[in-house]
Amino acid sequence: MTMRTVYLAGPDVFLPDAHALGARKKALCAQYGFEGLYPLDALTAEKPTDVEIYRSCVAMLRRADFGIVHLTPFRGPSADVGTVYELGVLIALGKAVFGYTNDAADLLTRVGRIGRVARDEAAGEWRDADGLTIEDFGNADNLMIDAGLAAQGHPIIRIDAPPDARFHDLRGFEACLERAVAHFGKG
Amino acid sequence: MTMRTVYLAGPDVFLPDAHALGARKKALCAQYGFEGLYPLDALTAEKPTDVEIYRSCVAMLRRADFGIVHLTPFRGPSADVGTVYELGVLIALGKAVFGYTNDAADLLTRVGRIGRVARDEAAGEWRDADGLTIEDFGNADNLMIDAGLAAQGHPIIRIDAPPDARFHDLRGFEACLERAVAHFGKG
Repeated sequence: MTMRTVYLAGPDVFLPDAHALGARKKALCAQYGFEGLYPLDALTAEKPTDVEIYRSCVAMLRRADFGIVHLTPFRGPSADVGTVYELGVLIALGKAVFGYTNDAADLLTRVGRIGRVARDEAAGEWRDADGLTIEDFGNADNLMIDAGLAAQGHPIIRIDAPPDARFHDLRGFEACLERAVAHFGKG
Repeated sequence: MTMRTVYLAGPDVFLPDAHALGARKKALCAQYGFEGLYPLDALTAEKPTDVEIYRSCVAMLRRADFGIVHLTPFRGPSADVGTVYELGVLIALGKAVFGYTNDAADLLTRVGRIGRVARDEAAGEWRDADGLTIEDFGNADNLMIDAGLAAQGHPIIRIDAPPDARFHDLRGFEACLERAVAHFGKG
């Protein structure tokens, strides 16, 4: 029987060892009985345009049976926006998605790392240095991400990875694969 | 005849004057013949949970005929991830989406504001302080956002707003409404 395919979303593609990390992830997928679809693999042109990359990713997203999204904070308190876009697409298409982050801290803590945060007692809310509300649900990231995954029955997996393994620690990724096996059954 | 409905996605909901800004946007929508759906309007509980807010937003996204997404950089070089999630959902559901940002700078410039960027001549790529590749297509943000909108025929509108009007300038929003009128016709 054909193996189920899993789209591997994440900022992995921006790492200097993007191809090696993709190979590691695909090998782990195979161990769990899945075929990993890594965005870089579909690019045939040497210097693809942005629209070519976009169309290639969307075709892979549509082809995938489910997704695993890597949500470690990227250039700020939140996940990579390209990954989050793909998460929205996968969920809207009705596909199962499993997510992990290698930063276990909640959003309030994360925002506090990039600037002052303060409690607005009158409003009963936390605000950042620009006066913008910070969601305070104990979530890892924006509620559309955390609640979107939780509403599917698979809350985001939060790993406290050492700083130098921030983008490479695959314990959360493997935990997602274990959940996928349980979700789809052994078939 | 019933007016078309437009989902108003953006970090607007995090501003201290979130309700007033939503009212301004809905008034502009009405001027152009549309009914604006603002995420905060659907919340009936005084202290809704994250999952209640999520489900309310998703119901509004499904109900909307199209979307306008506000993509001004939020706590870093990129747009608010909640907004980007909703952009992915809208496009996956086959709805037209129009987007604007009040920061006209390209992604490379934006990343340069939060840290050192350097050219990796051997790889032919720009890298940030962590060695991560920075997309260099001249786009405002991650290519999934820019190319996703461009592939629909409605490239992101980039406005060079003054810093103190960063989240409130509605010229880009109004340009989106004009495009929507042209897209749907005068009906």
